[in-house]
Amino acid sequence: MIQSIDNQHRKAFGPIDAPERLLLGPGPSNAHPNVLNALALPPIGHLDPFYVNLMGEVQELLRYAWQTSNRLTLPMSGTGSAAMEATIANVVEPGDTVLVAVKGYFGNRLVDMAGRYGANICTIEKNWGQAFSLNDIEDALIKYKPNLLTIVHAETSTGVCQPMEGIGDLCRKYDCLLLVDTVTSLGAVPLYLDEWKVDLAYSCSQKGLSCPPGLGPFTMNERAEKKLSLRKGKVPNWYLDVSLLNKYWGSDRVYHHTAPVNMNFGIREALRLLAEEGLEKSWARHRTNAEKLWTGLEEIGLTLHVENDLRLPTLTTVKIPEGVDGKAFTLHLLNTYGVEVGVGLGDLAGKVWRIGLMGYNSTSQNVEKVLNLFDTEMSKFKK
Amino acid sequence: MIQSIDNQHRKAFGPIDAPERLLLGPGPSNAHPNVLNALALPPIGHLDPFYVNLMGEVQELLRYAWQTSNRLTLPMSGTGSAAMEATIANVVEPGDTVLVAVKGYFGNRLVDMAGRYGANICTIEKNWGQAFSLNDIEDALIKYKPNLLTIVHAETSTGVCQPMEGIGDLCRKYDCLLLVDTVTSLGAVPLYLDEWKVDLAYSCSQKGLSCPPGLGPFTMNERAEKKLSLRKGKVPNWYLDVSLLNKYWGSDRVYHHTAPVNMNFGIREALRLLAEEGLEKSWARHRTNAEKLWTGLEEIGLTLHVENDLRLPTLTTVKIPEGVDGKAFTLHLLNTYGVEVGVGLGDLAGKVWRIGLMGYNSTSQNVEKVLNLFDTEMSKFKK
Repeated sequence: MIQSIDNQHRKAFGPIDAPERLLLGPGPSNAHPNVLNALALPPIGHLDPFYVNLMGEVQELLRYAWQTSNRLTLPMSGTGSAAMEATIANVVEPGDTVLVAVKGYFGNRLVDMAGRYGANICTIEKNWGQAFSLNDIEDALIKYKPNLLTIVHAETSTGVCQPMEGIGDLCRKYDCLLLVDTVTSLGAVPLYLDEWKVDLAYSCSQKGLSCPPGLGPFTMNERAEKKLSLRKGKVPNWYLDVSLLNKYWGSDRVYHHTAPVNMNFGIREALRLLAEEGLEKSWARHRTNAEKLWTGLEEIGLTLHVENDLRLPTLTTVKIPEGVDGKAFTLHLLNTYGVEVGVGLGDLAGKVWRIGLMGYNSTSQNVEKVLNLFDTEMSKFKK
Repeated sequence: MIQSIDNQHRKAFGPIDAPERLLLGPGPSNAHPNVLNALALPPIGHLDPFYVNLMGEVQELLRYAWQTSNRLTLPMSGTGSAAMEATIANVVEPGDTVLVAVKGYFGNRLVDMAGRYGANICTIEKNWGQAFSLNDIEDALIKYKPNLLTIVHAETSTGVCQPMEGIGDLCRKYDCLLLVDTVTSLGAVPLYLDEWKVDLAYSCSQKGLSCPPGLGPFTMNERAEKKLSLRKGKVPNWYLDVSLLNKYWGSDRVYHHTAPVNMNFGIREALRLLAEEGLEKSWARHRTNAEKLWTGLEEIGLTLHVENDLRLPTLTTVKIPEGVDGKAFTLHLLNTYGVEVGVGLGDLAGKVWRIGLMGYNSTSQNVEKVLNLFDTEMSKFKK
């Protein structure tokens, strides 16, 4: 029965010999050592009573991090992009009008995704580095009468933090659901989902939460649940169908898919550490370190891309000075010092560097380290 | 700017205190200790040159495990169910006819998934515990003229291993793509994807590969790629769209989503260990231990659910004797001995136990341990 085996792809690799990196780019960020230890615990069954209890703990701690009491709050078994798609897939029906507020790379991604679910897409746009005003939003809600407004709270591609106060009220006034991307803000930047009247949100595990990438926190409130319950057909995405996931993560615990048990060990520890520190302290720590970075970069003579009031504490965009080879400089930092700093994406390609200070990596020492490298090494990369 | 924080969900949990489990159920199985160590390596960037190289190593080792040279061979950033959906989402277009060969739980799931992608579904069915013959398949291909035939190689719900020789030839004869579920066979049971002319396949990380759950190996050959390239519209699933993933996992390395870096460290180590052992040895080890289990169960007086020729070495279904409380017995094994054994699912609920011997757990000692427990403890659970 056993025929001959083809060994052409049987490569004799050694064990993984990964370099040490300090990840100060747009993400992933370094994980907390306790989280890595939790990841390495022996797996248990996804229907084991211990695991079922742990699922509830993860949900509860996610609610705290997001400041929401939404019942349907859970980590999707994929990365942040899967959670992003889950928000769209569950509430968008063909023919719905989706208004996407685009001010960076991830706004464009939402346009692509929502189109795949048959939505009529309308967009409003801002230059990469700016934010929307309440007037911008209200005008568009009146003009397009959307069923759903999507907006990115923390734009990783531009370093802008979108002011959120008042947007939820406008969405209720014009009978529209509000979907917010919190990928680069959860755990690190003030977020009040319920107070802001956010109906759906998603995030990732590898930024403010100090866990490796692989899980996508997701939440929806009762307004969004109602839209889901009134769908004409099944959610056109089995893996991300919240009506099925609800039976697994809810009280029924009906088998849906085999949960990524170890990643959930990791995020449970990450969220526990966040609760232990407390949101106030974590948010203040991120702001203090970011302000120290901003001041230091300006002292070196660099210019920040985003005006002070809109800057995101987790991700700073700084302009590449005329005549400097920005890409060669980041490769030098990576290869010589093991420090990862990001380059620009999309409209900002070649124009900015992106420096992340997220979760475990938001420390005074890391700010000093990166400032010192910019101060002493950048001048070597004049074109 | 920082308003008052609601602490109702700020629970003060202690660190994870997971019980030790020997996972001899339908999966997950225990992970190899080396794999757990790899999982706990500090993450690096998903576009780091070291990581990009590692992606290529994972792909190459997956090709070996599956015995395929398919270019598009990669782990989906989700569990096996995500990889299952990826096969459907990429090649099924609305109006396509999909023939699902149902002989257990996971056949039914494929019916649900393919329906969501607009397929006309036809099914052929066998009792849970049987397999399809070539005649069954050919008759259905003639009758339904499907674009795609899906069949489960190793049915975790029944313990049946579907004989695959000849099915691929029939599919080519009738111009149909062949999609095979190898969730419970990859790495553990003889699999020759290219020789069997399989066009699409998927699997999981937590069974024969001895890695925790969280990645979904996926592969498609040129015939399937051609169907994808001729699609009229975009793949209606952004996260699992192989035309986008191809740019990330192919030579372009265009950013798609942030890869679950640590899970890929884990599967890379798992696949490396498999290549080190060699498929011949791994397959033989699984068969030897399974045969020892089957003989031992029969010596205790138990009856196996599946006839000898069709039995799956990784998953054994054994009938719960009349008058024994099967569920109470498995709870006893879990709570008293830390040993997880599965109960029946779907048509076999209440009728069988499911004993898994997969990957790292397929050892002679584990067989002796589980046989000893059945021998000494089962009689305590007479109703």
